[in-house]
Amino acid sequence: MRPFRESPIARDGKVLILAYDHGLEHGPVDFDPVPETMNPEAVWDIATHDAVSAMAVQKGVAEAYYPSYEDDVNLLAKLNGTSNLWMGEPDSAVNWSVDYANEIGADAVGFTLYGGSNNEIEMAEEFRKAQEAAREHDLPVVMWSYPRGQGLKNDRDPQTIAYAARQALELGADIAKVKYPGSTEQMQFAVDAAGATRVVMSGGSKTSDREFLTQVKGAIDAGAVGLAVGRNVWQRENPAAFLDGLEAVIYEETSVDEALDRI
Amino acid sequence: MRPFRESPIARDGKVLILAYDHGLEHGPVDFDPVPETMNPEAVWDIATHDAVSAMAVQKGVAEAYYPSYEDDVNLLAKLNGTSNLWMGEPDSAVNWSVDYANEIGADAVGFTLYGGSNNEIEMAEEFRKAQEAAREHDLPVVMWSYPRGQGLKNDRDPQTIAYAARQALELGADIAKVKYPGSTEQMQFAVDAAGATRVVMSGGSKTSDREFLTQVKGAIDAGAVGLAVGRNVWQRENPAAFLDGLEAVIYEETSVDEALDRI
Amino acid sequence: MRPFRESPIARDGKVLILAYDHGLEHGPVDFDPVPETMNPEAVWDIATHDAVSAMAVQKGVAEAYYPSYEDDVNLLAKLNGTSNLWMGEPDSAVNWSVDYANEIGADAVGFTLYGGSNNEIEMAEEFRKAQEAAREHDLPVVMWSYPRGQGLKNDRDPQTIAYAARQALELGADIAKVKYPGSTEQMQFAVDAAGATRVVMSGGSKTSDREFLTQVKGAIDAGAVGLAVGRNVWQRENPAAFLDGLEAVIYEETSVDEALDRI
Amino acid sequence: MRPFRESPIARDGKVLILAYDHGLEHGPVDFDPVPETMNPEAVWDIATHDAVSAMAVQKGVAEAYYPSYEDDVNLLAKLNGTSNLWMGEPDSAVNWSVDYANEIGADAVGFTLYGGSNNEIEMAEEFRKAQEAAREHDLPVVMWSYPRGQGLKNDRDPQTIAYAARQALELGADIAKVKYPGSTEQMQFAVDAAGATRVVMSGGSKTSDREFLTQVKGAIDAGAVGLAVGRNVWQRENPAAFLDGLEAVIYEETSVDEALDRI
Amino acid sequence: MRPFRESPIARDGKVLILAYDHGLEHGPVDFDPVPETMNPEAVWDIATHDAVSAMAVQKGVAEAYYPSYEDDVNLLAKLNGTSNLWMGEPDSAVNWSVDYANEIGADAVGFTLYGGSNNEIEMAEEFRKAQEAAREHDLPVVMWSYPRGQGLKNDRDPQTIAYAARQALELGADIAKVKYPGSTEQMQFAVDAAGATRVVMSGGSKTSDREFLTQVKGAIDAGAVGLAVGRNVWQRENPAAFLDGLEAVIYEETSVDEALDRI
Repeated sequence: MRPFRESPIARDGKVLILAYDHGLEHGPVDFDPVPETMNPEAVWDIATHDAVSAMAVQKGVAEAYYPSYEDDVNLLAKLNGTSNLWMGEPDSAVNWSVDYANEIGADAVGFTLYGGSNNEIEMAEEFRKAQEAAREHDLPVVMWSYPRGQGLKNDRDPQTIAYAARQALELGADIAKVKYPGSTEQMQFAVDAAGATRVVMSGGSKTSDREFLTQVKGAIDAGAVGLAVGRNVWQRENPAAFLDGLEAVIYEETSVDEALDRI
Repeated sequence: MRPFRESPIARDGKVLILAYDHGLEHGPVDFDPVPETMNPEAVWDIATHDAVSAMAVQKGVAEAYYPSYEDDVNLLAKLNGTSNLWMGEPDSAVNWSVDYANEIGADAVGFTLYGGSNNEIEMAEEFRKAQEAAREHDLPVVMWSYPRGQGLKNDRDPQTIAYAARQALELGADIAKVKYPGSTEQMQFAVDAAGATRVVMSGGSKTSDREFLTQVKGAIDAGAVGLAVGRNVWQRENPAAFLDGLEAVIYEETSVDEALDRI
Repeated sequence: MRPFRESPIARDGKVLILAYDHGLEHGPVDFDPVPETMNPEAVWDIATHDAVSAMAVQKGVAEAYYPSYEDDVNLLAKLNGTSNLWMGEPDSAVNWSVDYANEIGADAVGFTLYGGSNNEIEMAEEFRKAQEAAREHDLPVVMWSYPRGQGLKNDRDPQTIAYAARQALELGADIAKVKYPGSTEQMQFAVDAAGATRVVMSGGSKTSDREFLTQVKGAIDAGAVGLAVGRNVWQRENPAAFLDGLEAVIYEETSVDEALDRI
Repeated sequence: MRPFRESPIARDGKVLILAYDHGLEHGPVDFDPVPETMNPEAVWDIATHDAVSAMAVQKGVAEAYYPSYEDDVNLLAKLNGTSNLWMGEPDSAVNWSVDYANEIGADAVGFTLYGGSNNEIEMAEEFRKAQEAAREHDLPVVMWSYPRGQGLKNDRDPQTIAYAARQALELGADIAKVKYPGSTEQMQFAVDAAGATRVVMSGGSKTSDREFLTQVKGAIDAGAVGLAVGRNVWQRENPAAFLDGLEAVIYEETSVDEALDRI
Repeated sequence: MRPFRESPIARDGKVLILAYDHGLEHGPVDFDPVPETMNPEAVWDIATHDAVSAMAVQKGVAEAYYPSYEDDVNLLAKLNGTSNLWMGEPDSAVNWSVDYANEIGADAVGFTLYGGSNNEIEMAEEFRKAQEAAREHDLPVVMWSYPRGQGLKNDRDPQTIAYAARQALELGADIAKVKYPGSTEQMQFAVDAAGATRVVMSGGSKTSDREFLTQVKGAIDAGAVGLAVGRNVWQRENPAAFLDGLEAVIYEETSVDEALDRI
């Protein structure tokens, strides 16, 4: 079977991926709320929190910093990504070969697919190469499955999100990272669509503690195995405290109120 | 000669391919009529019916589920496919290398060609690579031969369907999966056009028991070796019973009425 | 030097290539005049006629039928080709690798170049790969040299046909298959332009016995080494008799009248 | 970790790259101010100045001249580049493989990325291959990170320059070569954005001694490790004297006035 | 260093390349003035003249004829080229791999670059592969450096021709073949721009004896190492006599009048 449960990026079958590729995808502007987060060390430090089961970064951030954190953090090599300086039909450059990611010590790989983009077919074929190379190294594969582009009217539509989750299953991802469609019931539809592929909720832009934990709770109740989150952690004043709250909701499946008490 | 007859996907020289790649091609909406079919296990279970000589799935559905069914089901690795989130000129991503399909235990491979699409030439060249790699592994090759795109006015025209069957022969497919053109005589024209390449009827969207069996009977009478079917089986209340009927028509060449009695 | 004269596809330095890739290039409609020709065996049988020095087919037709005819027919592997379902700027898919053609037992390879098409450069580069691979296997290379596309006003212009013949020489084909430009003198211009590359006349659509033999005679008188013909043989009632006539004109260099007597 | 500090192209952790690829990028017109600079030897001679820690050239200029200078100059192989005869959306040809650059004796490699260009994705993927090949040879990688193209309104915007510096970090460059954004504070923002990736200021078109040294001083004060400069050195009457001034500012971190005294 | 001077294609450091790829580039129309030149043997015979240091042909003309001339003529393998049947933005197909050219016995390779064309970047990358492969075989590389296409207003502008010569240096050609810009002084500018890369004048369409020799004399006086010429030799009544004149101007550096006396 597929190498998820025994992988170091899972803790009791759950995952909390701390994503930190915003410097590439959005640029330094994402670090404005908490300027010290521009320094990758600040976020690698956050990732040493027990709740974080893997940190997702681009190649350069792994090369330069992972050697100092490899004992304390699991590395999810985000293989593709692009700047938002370029504003055409959604696409993403493959910036990292799986072989090299494995050499650097990656525990898993991540790959974005923009279903519905004019570039979907090319991206799917790039995904194929990455996925099959990852299989050779027994690395779990996480798909950032984000329908987007000319063909999409509403990328928050529950049918679209369920379709995205299904694409991850059909194409061979171990974990599908999808947007939260708005309710537990709708998230459960996506989780069902994903079949054996596990689903994690994508964090998105920053919201209030309660709002965010409520979404995460909704996702966990729907059967998602966890969360991939960036700004909602490291754009907060006290990320460690908020990770305490997320840890409660995800791994202990507490209520939102109990989790808020831990923050 | 070509490795069809002795292949595990044939039973007495006939085939019934249960197709289940709709989650990728159409999305979860195809599972609405029978919601439990969203769970691949439900359809793999159906595929254990004796009438089913192979199950056609995408890579991820094979990786996750085939190990539990490999004793009871033959695997047809559908190598390419794409979502309908993207609505451009017909094309299809190659999601699976033949080498890896072989490693997973595939008994045959499948490949879609959209003749008449602006992408026909690129697809034909991708087919070449897949076909020649399949030959190295002695895997039979099934072509989903579906003229479609800018150049096509009517993809149900008997001449077009016969042309599609012929393309499968000329390019080196062992089996051509084509639409039913409407009558036994017209189907026979396609079967003749395919020469040594065997023809199977493509199931399409769900119709009544009698209507569907009548088409299948027409195809068998025309010399087709069987059927590739998805929705017309697993969108039914009792797929096993309907497979009993298909088994009668395809393998025993009974009349439609006799087959209906078995359902 | 180049491997033409000693090759099995030449008989006394002359060639008569029976072409049968029309099922791919034109579809089943080309078999309407003599419906049994839809069955490849009917045409392979015709190819056993002593006058036929090679039969040109696509991969699938070779794979399925050549094993039964390999003692009696020489195989010319037509490497590229495409359907006419697609109606864009002329192009052709490479459907067969030279290595695999060699494995199947090909005695020569054939390749279409559409000079003047927007795709000419890509096709020329594909030709390069095929030609150099053919050299490794000592397989003669026949170029279907057909100027066609946006840049062409008149593909029957004698200057254009001579240019096509010259392209075959310059790019390294052993034999150039070109249209008959209309007269012996004009054909001789093309033969001269081809230099050491031998020229064969392309048969084209069906005409009367006398008209066709007169063209062939004109080509032979012009120094062409023979003919590549499809419809003008197998769309006839009695292809064997007509091949007797062609044999006379091509190999014995008889007059048209004498050849007509043999039919 | 990454191979910058111990590399021959650094001197006490600082760098002064003398760039001389203008013959390709801009043409002979850049040599008009000091015509003898059209002769590469004139500029290689300048590069023997102690202040120059590496000379950046295209392949041909390295092949022809580096053997005479390899004892005195460190070679930075500028891998891509293109003429300005072509005026489309920014792009750059890869003119040199890393393996061959290594064979010629390169001490580091350089690569331009035009973030914001329609070609950004393709360029990033070419960068990936070059960067990973450079890692195999332990060659430091310098990215000429120049946002440019359809998507860019102002390539001197401090946010854009910081984004460019960040791209270099995220994609795995050891050094980012960026435009000077106008002030020390703004340059420091770019240096911070680059994290562990070192930043060098890009020289640009010729300005006065004081103006240029003031910019360089500003960059050094901001934490940049040095400068990559072409025209501002070899378009001067006395490049050696000006290099004395640059040496003071960069390696000794003198004031601008003190540096001007050395010129 | 680079393998020019000791190469068989140089005689005392000078070169006279007889070009004969016009059958591909322009078609048979170029042979109209002297119809026997359509036969490659006629031009290969001309190339045995002592003044000719290499003959530049496409692959097919080398394969078919070079074996008969290899003792008397040096082979320059012109690697790319295309017909003028296709009239789009300038581009050129790579018709010959360097490995195969080496196998046939090439003494040098030639490659066209259309700087300023929309295809410049792709052509430069194809040049890279050819140049690096040529280095492995110690074959000198001649670049036909011809700015042409959308970006160019005047391809005879001396600045443009000097830029073309410089591109040849920067990209790693040993010899740059450029148009004659009109005067010795302007040609010297191009020769200077080329640095260590030698420059040869491109012959162009036929002119009078005196006019052509005057241009060649101007190029030699400017420091060019010779000439690449086709039509101005083999479109003449007595090519051998004219080669006597060119030999005088190029190798003996005589005056034009003295050279005319030898014709």
